[in-house]
Amino acid sequence: MYILKNENAIYYEIGYSCDNGILIALENLKLFFTDSRYFEEAKEIVRNRGEVVEASRNLIDTAVEFLKKEGVKSLQFDPYEWSVAEFKKLSSLDIEFLPKPHLSKEKRIIKREQEIQYISTAVKYGRAGFQRFKDYLAVKGLGKKERELQFKMKTIIQQKGDLQLSFSPIVALNENTSKPHALPTDRRLSSGDLVLVDAGVKYKRYCSDRTETFMFQKTKFSSVKMTPKVQNIYDTVQKAHDEAIAKAKVGMKASEIDKIARTVIENAGFGKNFLHSTGHGVGLDIHEFPNISQSSDVVIEENMVFTIEPAIYIPNFMGVRIEDMVVMKKDGAKVL
Amino acid sequence: MYILKNENAIYYEIGYSCDNGILIALENLKLFFTDSRYFEEAKEIVRNRGEVVEASRNLIDTAVEFLKKEGVKSLQFDPYEWSVAEFKKLSSLDIEFLPKPHLSKEKRIIKREQEIQYISTAVKYGRAGFQRFKDYLAVKGLGKKERELQFKMKTIIQQKGDLQLSFSPIVALNENTSKPHALPTDRRLSSGDLVLVDAGVKYKRYCSDRTETFMFQKTKFSSVKMTPKVQNIYDTVQKAHDEAIAKAKVGMKASEIDKIARTVIENAGFGKNFLHSTGHGVGLDIHEFPNISQSSDVVIEENMVFTIEPAIYIPNFMGVRIEDMVVMKKDGAKVL
Repeated sequence: MYILKNENAIYYEIGYSCDNGILIALENLKLFFTDSRYFEEAKEIVRNRGEVVEASRNLIDTAVEFLKKEGVKSLQFDPYEWSVAEFKKLSSLDIEFLPKPHLSKEKRIIKREQEIQYISTAVKYGRAGFQRFKDYLAVKGLGKKERELQFKMKTIIQQKGDLQLSFSPIVALNENTSKPHALPTDRRLSSGDLVLVDAGVKYKRYCSDRTETFMFQKTKFSSVKMTPKVQNIYDTVQKAHDEAIAKAKVGMKASEIDKIARTVIENAGFGKNFLHSTGHGVGLDIHEFPNISQSSDVVIEENMVFTIEPAIYIPNFMGVRIEDMVVMKKDGAKVL
Repeated sequence: MYILKNENAIYYEIGYSCDNGILIALENLKLFFTDSRYFEEAKEIVRNRGEVVEASRNLIDTAVEFLKKEGVKSLQFDPYEWSVAEFKKLSSLDIEFLPKPHLSKEKRIIKREQEIQYISTAVKYGRAGFQRFKDYLAVKGLGKKERELQFKMKTIIQQKGDLQLSFSPIVALNENTSKPHALPTDRRLSSGDLVLVDAGVKYKRYCSDRTETFMFQKTKFSSVKMTPKVQNIYDTVQKAHDEAIAKAKVGMKASEIDKIARTVIENAGFGKNFLHSTGHGVGLDIHEFPNISQSSDVVIEENMVFTIEPAIYIPNFMGVRIEDMVVMKKDGAKVL
């Protein structure tokens, strides 16, 4: 028995959620509390997956009353989901609240077939969006501001609104690529610029995530020559990416996959320029489990879905990140 | 002395924020902790408004160490900002943490001249976006899906990416207008449809918020005739909106402003169809103080900025909401 508040956590349970909802899962019953703004819609969509209860705008009060009436004795909750103030209201009750960090994300770490299909479709649409964006760049990109390009990527990848963004895309040029989470500026795209694009879309609420780094030269990408220094950095990141994917196996610790990528980059002398972990799980949330990081002891299992995104950032000069999503299968990681 | 985590709360203090930052304000010093991904950018922008400290990705640990070293004895925090799990880490310290709900929003309730200018500009751009969207509808709207129209509103109001959205716009047609937070469907726009649009943009991070409800008929809005029933509902909402603005005065309680609008709607027999409060403050966050609600005892002061947005929702039939933003001045509420 547990209580959930996070939108994606609730969606996973009953196929609906909104920005003011609480789900209480008892032995044989899931109750979804929401206010009058969402009640109608919720009932239509939830159907037999749970019972929808119309509550006052202050859901916690209604939930507390319900728990009292039902005589619930103990309930799991995610201490990352509840603010100190909200939890104080909840815990005024005579109920034992058992902290279970990341309760929903732990449940969601291994994806069901249906989820993998949705993610896979999101990845396909995301990749197609990158292609259309590069086609656009080739014809119209020259001289456009980073800010305009970021907006263009947003609109292109969303396919006229059929898809939602997984997150606000990053489009960075040249030295701005050295900031892993760069904000777009008024810098204009010139021939020979390094371009980093990180973007994704949602399909049936499941996210995709992808990063490409490339050189832009007038209208033909293929003819671009990087300087040897930049090319070396690019090739190192590509090698780290490829090796991590080729060597990832079910039964490994997540930290071992991180180590494969990190070792390639360290051996090339860029260890201190790889500022983040190698990857992260993806699903309803853009950041899920498993973390593919130096400190993650999670053992990789079949049907986990995560990114592989090694990178090298040289401050004020340039950065390269190459990111794909994979699903783990018995015989290795399969690129989505 | 206080500690902040929320992005807008931090931005208000030092003119910069990102999705992994903690601000600690001591007597004469503001310290901003962030990780290596943002450190460079933060230093450039914060300048003399605070000191930027490069921390591990786990900021709380670094902050805790700092507080220990400085021998800080007590610190205010906002219990709505901190999750139970995060606060547990913080409070492992020998420091007295004083809960101060909405610490930053309370500070921001009265806007500075500069802020009012920014908000005013955001409102101007937002209103212009509505006009361009209606121009688009008149020429190309007929037969478009709600989903496409919502996407179009998003792209139009953002002006090629120069502006960010305050929130994901609502575009609802006919019976969908009866849901205050409707999600876009595949329903197509027909002549004679009621259209509700709720949208806003940010200028220098300050939000605008606006709702219009109108009838769509082929290409001319002006020639549209509502049925008497719909017209009566529309006129009632308009009257509630106009009276609330005309009668709002410095020194009133927020609940009194709500009552002005609510009374008009109740007198017309639609009291139970006005599902939410009359308005909310707007600033860096789309929802700030003061709440213009039945239960708000806040006394209205000069330079508070808030929405007036009465509404009537008839389930499965239609809804009308009319929303403007006002700034309170000595001689009354001024529509932005």
